[in-house]
Amino acid sequence: MNILTLTGGIGGAKLALGLSHVLGPDQVTFAVNVGDDFEHLGLHISPDIDTLTYTLAGEVNPKTGWGRSDESWQAMTALDSLGGETWFQLGDRDLGLHLFRTDLLKQGMSLSEVTDLIRRQLGVQHPVVPITDDVLRTVVNTERGTLDFQEYFVKHRCQPRVTSVEYRQPQPASLSPRIQFENFDGILICPSNPYLSIDPLLAVQELDQYLRNRTVPVIAVSPIVGSDSIKGPTAKMMQELGVPTSCTTIAEYYRDFIDGFVIDVVDEEHVACITKLGIQVAVRPSVMSTLEDKIQLATDCISFFESMGVCS
Amino acid sequence: MNILTLTGGIGGAKLALGLSHVLGPDQVTFAVNVGDDFEHLGLHISPDIDTLTYTLAGEVNPKTGWGRSDESWQAMTALDSLGGETWFQLGDRDLGLHLFRTDLLKQGMSLSEVTDLIRRQLGVQHPVVPITDDVLRTVVNTERGTLDFQEYFVKHRCQPRVTSVEYRQPQPASLSPRIQFENFDGILICPSNPYLSIDPLLAVQELDQYLRNRTVPVIAVSPIVGSDSIKGPTAKMMQELGVPTSCTTIAEYYRDFIDGFVIDVVDEEHVACITKLGIQVAVRPSVMSTLEDKIQLATDCISFFESMGVCS
Repeated sequence: MNILTLTGGIGGAKLALGLSHVLGPDQVTFAVNVGDDFEHLGLHISPDIDTLTYTLAGEVNPKTGWGRSDESWQAMTALDSLGGETWFQLGDRDLGLHLFRTDLLKQGMSLSEVTDLIRRQLGVQHPVVPITDDVLRTVVNTERGTLDFQEYFVKHRCQPRVTSVEYRQPQPASLSPRIQFENFDGILICPSNPYLSIDPLLAVQELDQYLRNRTVPVIAVSPIVGSDSIKGPTAKMMQELGVPTSCTTIAEYYRDFIDGFVIDVVDEEHVACITKLGIQVAVRPSVMSTLEDKIQLATDCISFFESMGVCS
Repeated sequence: MNILTLTGGIGGAKLALGLSHVLGPDQVTFAVNVGDDFEHLGLHISPDIDTLTYTLAGEVNPKTGWGRSDESWQAMTALDSLGGETWFQLGDRDLGLHLFRTDLLKQGMSLSEVTDLIRRQLGVQHPVVPITDDVLRTVVNTERGTLDFQEYFVKHRCQPRVTSVEYRQPQPASLSPRIQFENFDGILICPSNPYLSIDPLLAVQELDQYLRNRTVPVIAVSPIVGSDSIKGPTAKMMQELGVPTSCTTIAEYYRDFIDGFVIDVVDEEHVACITKLGIQVAVRPSVMSTLEDKIQLATDCISFFESMGVCS
């Protein structure tokens, strides 16, 4: 079994950690959203890649789900006292990584290469790959105007009402050369925000086309449990976009390119609706609080692939 | 009295601190070497400006004479564990300043503007001005080849034998617009390294021409006391360049554009030689260990200007 896993930040990283416990480094590759990336204070920052890498390395701050554990904030304090922009909090240890990446990118290394080097140096065994090495930036159109992703997400704390989301590509973004579809016999979409984490992945045309014309099963895990999102603004955005906040809405949204959908046990009533869309449904506990929860959901996803004929 | 003071880093900053205690913010301006500046890890670093600003702000690390007091090194530790370049040590609080400057430069602010903003935010009342806003980089030709300044100075710890020094300007560097010669009635050259700290200032043609055709007195303080430099590689470089390591050599080097020269009391024997060059000499204690030493030497320099007709 070799699964390509599409993931955003915190929510996706939880399932990724579970998968890393039950699949070997040659059995799962994590393809990560770069729509959140931005240039800030002269640094190239890749929030989702870092959240995933820190999580897999056991380095993530367990309280926040992002940033590094045992972090200090001396640089931000100094920046603040100078009157600098501190709305995007960068810990001192985290800064060490941003300096490293920014330097190597300036030297001409690709984001895929830098990401691979960093995850190896942090002791992560499983491949972590940005979906593209090209510039692809999520932009959120809101009642307060068009906001860069991090402005929307961090500076304005997702408060402005969203009208639509765009994925800007100065040049059409190419799939990272480290993702070769023929190597995979299943695709897994993590329980990440469809608009902010998964759609920017699909904005890479090669991935979108591959999923629509897929030859291997694609399974998604619902980011909506009951009528809410476990983490982040997914449910709030769905309300603002005028769609019901339910797992069925997500299944409908993904219907053109998924074969299977994992929903939480509290959502069993949705099985019939989703099945009618031609999508197989697995009902499992999907709220991942403990490491055991993450491993269990990962195991359930693998069983789902096996039930679709993917050999383990 | 309004004195334009030309300075490099640590040595010059000592006299600058003394001057800041005896002259008001409208009586002295510090024009600082930028030949040491470089781009490192994506950041614009201005070592001499920072040493001067931190010193005047009472923020400098008293043990090293550079960097900030109460510094931590978490970012460097993280960078080191990733395999990054850590030969140029950047403390966490110091990094906050580099991020601030780099960001503002990228936004289009000039180095003079950013430097002024930073010194104000750090509570420094006296003007601190980079000699130029343009790119001007000191390059050291050595027996091991041509080295960028910081490679020579920090990475190789001044060990390679120097054959010559260059001050590279992709475009001829213009004097900072914040330096207006007509405002000053005296110029003071700090006891900085002539080749590495003062010559890169003089590489700005407007300053060089102004000094050669000066209408106000110019006084320099010898960086050589006895046969050695107080700090840094001045004496070592003089030996490598084949000149005697004495204050007379420095006076000869500066003879075309100075009127007065301050030498240490241990060098009284040199008075006759230097006087013969047409340079007035003041013999004073010039080793600045304590704040009192710095204030005393500053006071002596002011008296020297007064003896040349500059009104206090």
